[in-house]
Amino acid sequence: MKILFLNGPNLNLLGQRETGVYGKTTLAQIENEVRKQATAVGAEVEFRQTNTEGELVTWIQQAPEAWDVVVLNAAAYTHTSIALRDAIAAIKLPVIEIHLSNIHAREHFRHKSLIAAVCQGQISGFGFHSYTLALTAALNVNALLK
Amino acid sequence: MKILFLNGPNLNLLGQRETGVYGKTTLAQIENEVRKQATAVGAEVEFRQTNTEGELVTWIQQAPEAWDVVVLNAAAYTHTSIALRDAIAAIKLPVIEIHLSNIHAREHFRHKSLIAAVCQGQISGFGFHSYTLALTAALNVNALLK
Amino acid sequence: MKILFLNGPNLNLLGQRETGVYGKTTLAQIENEVRKQATAVGAEVEFRQTNTEGELVTWIQQAPEAWDVVVLNAAAYTHTSIALRDAIAAIKLPVIEIHLSNIHAREHFRHKSLIAAVCQGQISGFGFHSYTLALTAALNVNALLK
Amino acid sequence: MKILFLNGPNLNLLGQRETGVYGKTTLAQIENEVRKQATAVGAEVEFRQTNTEGELVTWIQQAPEAWDVVVLNAAAYTHTSIALRDAIAAIKLPVIEIHLSNIHAREHFRHKSLIAAVCQGQISGFGFHSYTLALTAALNVNALLK
Amino acid sequence: MKILFLNGPNLNLLGQRETGVYGKTTLAQIENEVRKQATAVGAEVEFRQTNTEGELVTWIQQAPEAWDVVVLNAAAYTHTSIALRDAIAAIKLPVIEIHLSNIHAREHFRHKSLIAAVCQGQISGFGFHSYTLALTAALNVNALLK
Amino acid sequence: MKILFLNGPNLNLLGQRETGVYGKTTLAQIENEVRKQATAVGAEVEFRQTNTEGELVTWIQQAPEAWDVVVLNAAAYTHTSIALRDAIAAIKLPVIEIHLSNIHAREHFRHKSLIAAVCQGQISGFGFHSYTLALTAALNVNALLK
Amino acid sequence: MKILFLNGPNLNLLGQRETGVYGKTTLAQIENEVRKQATAVGAEVEFRQTNTEGELVTWIQQAPEAWDVVVLNAAAYTHTSIALRDAIAAIKLPVIEIHLSNIHAREHFRHKSLIAAVCQGQISGFGFHSYTLALTAALNVNALLK
Amino acid sequence: MKILFLNGPNLNLLGQRETGVYGKTTLAQIENEVRKQATAVGAEVEFRQTNTEGELVTWIQQAPEAWDVVVLNAAAYTHTSIALRDAIAAIKLPVIEIHLSNIHAREHFRHKSLIAAVCQGQISGFGFHSYTLALTAALNVNALLK
Amino acid sequence: MKILFLNGPNLNLLGQRETGVYGKTTLAQIENEVRKQATAVGAEVEFRQTNTEGELVTWIQQAPEAWDVVVLNAAAYTHTSIALRDAIAAIKLPVIEIHLSNIHAREHFRHKSLIAAVCQGQISGFGFHSYTLALTAALNVNALLK
Amino acid sequence: MKILFLNGPNLNLLGQRETGVYGKTTLAQIENEVRKQATAVGAEVEFRQTNTEGELVTWIQQAPEAWDVVVLNAAAYTHTSIALRDAIAAIKLPVIEIHLSNIHAREHFRHKSLIAAVCQGQISGFGFHSYTLALTAALNVNALLK
Amino acid sequence: MKILFLNGPNLNLLGQRETGVYGKTTLAQIENEVRKQATAVGAEVEFRQTNTEGELVTWIQQAPEAWDVVVLNAAAYTHTSIALRDAIAAIKLPVIEIHLSNIHAREHFRHKSLIAAVCQGQISGFGFHSYTLALTAALNVNALLK
Amino acid sequence: MKILFLNGPNLNLLGQRETGVYGKTTLAQIENEVRKQATAVGAEVEFRQTNTEGELVTWIQQAPEAWDVVVLNAAAYTHTSIALRDAIAAIKLPVIEIHLSNIHAREHFRHKSLIAAVCQGQISGFGFHSYTLALTAALNVNALLK
Repeated sequence: MKILFLNGPNLNLLGQRETGVYGKTTLAQIENEVRKQATAVGAEVEFRQTNTEGELVTWIQQAPEAWDVVVLNAAAYTHTSIALRDAIAAIKLPVIEIHLSNIHAREHFRHKSLIAAVCQGQISGFGFHSYTLALTAALNVNALLK
Repeated sequence: MKILFLNGPNLNLLGQRETGVYGKTTLAQIENEVRKQATAVGAEVEFRQTNTEGELVTWIQQAPEAWDVVVLNAAAYTHTSIALRDAIAAIKLPVIEIHLSNIHAREHFRHKSLIAAVCQGQISGFGFHSYTLALTAALNVNALLK
Repeated sequence: MKILFLNGPNLNLLGQRETGVYGKTTLAQIENEVRKQATAVGAEVEFRQTNTEGELVTWIQQAPEAWDVVVLNAAAYTHTSIALRDAIAAIKLPVIEIHLSNIHAREHFRHKSLIAAVCQGQISGFGFHSYTLALTAALNVNALLK
Repeated sequence: MKILFLNGPNLNLLGQRETGVYGKTTLAQIENEVRKQATAVGAEVEFRQTNTEGELVTWIQQAPEAWDVVVLNAAAYTHTSIALRDAIAAIKLPVIEIHLSNIHAREHFRHKSLIAAVCQGQISGFGFHSYTLALTAALNVNALLK
Repeated sequence: MKILFLNGPNLNLLGQRETGVYGKTTLAQIENEVRKQATAVGAEVEFRQTNTEGELVTWIQQAPEAWDVVVLNAAAYTHTSIALRDAIAAIKLPVIEIHLSNIHAREHFRHKSLIAAVCQGQISGFGFHSYTLALTAALNVNALLK
Repeated sequence: MKILFLNGPNLNLLGQRETGVYGKTTLAQIENEVRKQATAVGAEVEFRQTNTEGELVTWIQQAPEAWDVVVLNAAAYTHTSIALRDAIAAIKLPVIEIHLSNIHAREHFRHKSLIAAVCQGQISGFGFHSYTLALTAALNVNALLK
Repeated sequence: MKILFLNGPNLNLLGQRETGVYGKTTLAQIENEVRKQATAVGAEVEFRQTNTEGELVTWIQQAPEAWDVVVLNAAAYTHTSIALRDAIAAIKLPVIEIHLSNIHAREHFRHKSLIAAVCQGQISGFGFHSYTLALTAALNVNALLK
Repeated sequence: MKILFLNGPNLNLLGQRETGVYGKTTLAQIENEVRKQATAVGAEVEFRQTNTEGELVTWIQQAPEAWDVVVLNAAAYTHTSIALRDAIAAIKLPVIEIHLSNIHAREHFRHKSLIAAVCQGQISGFGFHSYTLALTAALNVNALLK
Repeated sequence: MKILFLNGPNLNLLGQRETGVYGKTTLAQIENEVRKQATAVGAEVEFRQTNTEGELVTWIQQAPEAWDVVVLNAAAYTHTSIALRDAIAAIKLPVIEIHLSNIHAREHFRHKSLIAAVCQGQISGFGFHSYTLALTAALNVNALLK
Repeated sequence: MKILFLNGPNLNLLGQRETGVYGKTTLAQIENEVRKQATAVGAEVEFRQTNTEGELVTWIQQAPEAWDVVVLNAAAYTHTSIALRDAIAAIKLPVIEIHLSNIHAREHFRHKSLIAAVCQGQISGFGFHSYTLALTAALNVNALLK
Repeated sequence: MKILFLNGPNLNLLGQRETGVYGKTTLAQIENEVRKQATAVGAEVEFRQTNTEGELVTWIQQAPEAWDVVVLNAAAYTHTSIALRDAIAAIKLPVIEIHLSNIHAREHFRHKSLIAAVCQGQISGFGFHSYTLALTAALNVNALLK
Repeated sequence: MKILFLNGPNLNLLGQRETGVYGKTTLAQIENEVRKQATAVGAEVEFRQTNTEGELVTWIQQAPEAWDVVVLNAAAYTHTSIALRDAIAAIKLPVIEIHLSNIHAREHFRHKSLIAAVCQGQISGFGFHSYTLALTAALNVNALLK
């Protein structure tokens, strides 16, 4: 099982700023934790981050060439990008939407996810555990009901 | 770790009807699977189901007396019950919101969760795996960022 | 043909109060009239009333065990209960939605029926005749187009 | 008792097209069935159809000269015609609003009826039986509560 | 000065029905009064009424051939007809919008006039005096500011 | 017949500024024209102007002591003042709402009049003729339908 | 004078939780204070609490059998229950709506009260004094203007 | 305890007009009743009324110099004045919002109070008793929860 | 290939009025140009125009009897006619929606087309070339993707 | 260069209350600072403050008689006064809109400025520096692009 | 005549995925067909595709240096990019907006085009023929009315 | 003091196109003017421009490494980019939002700034002077109230 973790804008700042909201764990530390758990069950993972919408779109388009599942933390683009939605709808791979914070408990413009309707499911509000829960979900993705 | 799984209206029909949407697994089978995994790590779980809003409210109010975490599939009341929201806000226990189907991919009136803002996090769209993912999340709830 | 008539909140007050709006006929008198007409054509009917949303949900869930059609006057829950909608959608029985008064000619919040989209059809505004018209409709329900 | 059945735009196509939605019964067949039932109880009926809003308005204006009740399937004009509403409000005759399909289960712009508030009642979703149910309602119209 | 008075749907019923709202004066009586006042100042008037939107549109299109001003009581079409608006915008003649009742004091859907923005001005709420006030306005139309 | 003409904010600038929109006639010239026509028919008029909402309210409250009709050009307060509306509703005198420009053809926030529903009628879009038309309407106010 | 105090969902938790918002006084203590003041003026009071919407509806329906006034703190059901509204409208007894906190200063979904329009009046934001103020109001209810 | 009662636009007409809505008691009579009750408990009160928004704002600004509590019936300005809201927010004195009629049962534009969120609490719908209830509330204001 | 060009209200004025918006070409000249191009490729065309909604509906209903494709410039009815939409949905013929001007760059109420969802495609903003482009599209309609 | 600084409701309280939001500088101190900077470049300034909307309107109307630019902090009237907007639009002088706090980061009803569209530009969120920045902008106003 | 065809996000996947919606023709095949037709009439074309909003903006900015017309399939950015709209508005070249599918018949968020108002015209719903129709339109662009 | 000026999409076209709206000054000329004024007070400035949202995000993220204040003209991204908002919120540096034109006087979709709530303040509508005013504001940023 090969799982691609894609991270959107500002997630490169994780653990360094606004730690009250997002925690003190860096994206590199999350990657290490996820990789450790993945290795333990024989899965392969890769982490990427970008601030550019178009690059996220391209990565999603290319995912089927080498990966089985995509775990996507689209951050701010979750709420504004129809291009991202179209890319997810275009590929056959299951995509799991995650968020560090509980987006439903924040500003009004973060309540609506444009990509949720074309993703497999959504995990939000568990801090860095959202990543490890998504790993577990990804490993079971073939057994999912739908 | 003692975890209470509360299930709202119509979930007693699970596995018997509309299996195209909700799958063929019954609530009892989900309970068995969750209990098996919980027992393996020394956790205790209990499953309850009701069609009445007021009963869900009372169960949430009483949860702190005997449980450490609540996993709540409020079903239709997710979208209409402020009473449920107030009960969750009133207790100190973390509550994890789950849904079998991806509520963001269904009818418009299911997109808004009135309880999300006062829950720890949300897991939706993974079929009965939403329950086992919630079990994992619940076991780590003390380590959560917030 | 066995037909179950379910009545929602405040319909137990029928004929006693606000007779200007709802008429002077009591629910018992309506039941008598409907039963008389049903008996004449060899059909069986039962009338139930409750003020509790959850009880209505449960009655609808159990209807397929003993009944062929449900006639539902959900009263105020027509406009607020997604749980009722989900229960109707979950069962295979045809459900006929009725109202004593013309809900489209009353307050704005009574114009929208949350259950209409999952019912067979709607009869509203004919006073207690809404019940006897529904009886006629129920008797022909197998011949309905859809 | 003399009852006038008025039919709005596109109902002349009934039974020939989109039979999946509207059934295979033609307007002429419905008329025959209604006339047969009406004759049996000594009532007189007439069926008219037009695609022009103004003609429907004129027919409603003239109805009191020769008829006791109007049964109106205004089709698309249900949702766009205030002129129709004004005509119904202007005459003293009771008007019964009917629809073949359940308008509340279709596109959003069909949920709102501009004429409902000035009609006696509404019957929708019973296919051609909506016409025969309306006949029954019309025969009892003098006994209606309001 | 030649002035054309156009009247929309249901105005042919004036004085006969709903006299509580629209008064007991018939359209013919209004026409007589207006004609009398017009003749006194050497102006020519003509009154027409139709229930069909398209006929109103055609009358407005043809008005420049024989008339100097149009006084338009579009009744219900005031609120639903963009075709009427386009016809008024297409001709160079000034069009004066009138209403018997105060449309701003009635149902919400009567508050918005689709034609107001392309008319010279609006007179509403003075009963049949709205017609004679419009006659006075029409006679002074060349002196109008705009 | 004694008629009080009340003018709201910025109408003191009439004829001096934005003459493209409001014309070159000053409020004093309008007053002269109205007074001349009023005197000719034995009526008495008075013109007042203020920029303060509260002063307009007070003038309306006191109008019944000395006047038979109020003609009100509330200008900007037309769209923002519920206090004005309450004052008009409180007195028994008929109030005629006027506007120089066609408010329905201007910015969106000028389309809604908060006072229209409690006034006798509305005349808008005829430049300074709106004042003389209102004079004519006021003289006939006792004959009005309502 | 016999006064029934009805309390909705989560009010049984009063004084124990979220004391920053609702204060440290328990519902029992409020009841004692109210009873003491009532007894002093020879009035009789009873306090009830429930988490179930249907039970509140039933209590309101039965109130006229034994009570003169109802004081109702409907809590969360204030904002979601049309059934409650219908029950209040159905009985002839005056119902006084109260709230501990100032609902207009809280979340947006708490600003709208569905029951306010059918209650005698509303008292909100005075903490437990809302109950004693309501007692005073109830004692004077016969003298109320409306 | 010194309590300042401020009254907004049109309240000077109280008892003289629209007595069906507002009762026959004048503002002077209310003042007498309130003063009598206040004197009995050793409190001092003053009543003021104005039709001008700016004057109300100034009175609120100056209140802390001589008063302990403000009771404010802002009438129409309740729904349109942010300036009033800012003044209330600026002073440290508790302000109690009152209304004679139940604003929630009247026109839609009276449902929203712009000042409620910055007031201590709201009392509405008890006729002139709203003033005496506010007096009682004001006397207990130091004991209020918040 | 036989192609029917239907034109809605006010298009008969084309080339004579408002030439700044719609150009100086008349509908007859457009018909000549289209006919010339159609003849060159052996296609047959017919042009019709009407101001009446109902007549447009009837023409669309009858189109399948003699034509292969309909090109429809519904003008103002584009935005207000559900009857037109139903007629298009009822026939099996492809219908191509055209507009002379770019409706998306005009008033807000012209942005929404009620018929677009049931047409094959939309061409707007190319002046009379919209007609010749539609001819080209119509000739290729069998090769269209959908 | 002569510059008039106009200040709206509650700004007289500046520096004395809510210093957390508005700072500790009084309006007099701001005036001193602005005057000092203005004198240094040979400009003349005047500061005025009022709580009354009508007085602000009058000051703006009279500004062209003696001043070259107006700097306007309309405070709460920014969001509710069309009268202010009309006055600004009526004069030819450039008006610069300023705010102490960042109105876009405060309550929703402060986000919309009714006067912005007729002002030269807007400076908000720089505390008392908003005034000195406006002075600089005013001195360069003749060089502005528009 | 030199024509630049710009293609937005996910159009590189054309013909490979979701062929049910977008057809089996690849972008390269479309390019070949368009080039063939262009060459036949002596026109020059170039095709570009990008997933990045900023790159589309830059291409549009540079188009006037080498091209006469732009044909733009902005895909998802049609609905979210004001930057694209500003770029189109900034250049003098005519831009023709095209879509493969009928955007008006898809999800609600695809109905609104942010760029339509600044484009020459719109062609949508004709599959790859949208491109060849746009070529024809582009060749005639100088003859367009506006 | 080191100040970074960031410019969003289409600002590279400044002075060359749409000079009626944006003036004839180029971005390079603005930079020269700003640099000259900055040098005079010993401050350091840098100007950057990009059409890509992601690049703006990255520049903002990196700003704290070398700069004291950011002046941001985000152009079209002002209204669509939550990613930009998140980046500004993530860094501790003050960011000053500027616009050449008065965005509040333009199209409706330009009235709302998504970034305003997380910026220090906003300066708009002063043409290229918006840049020099921002320089002045930036130099005083440490003295700002908040």
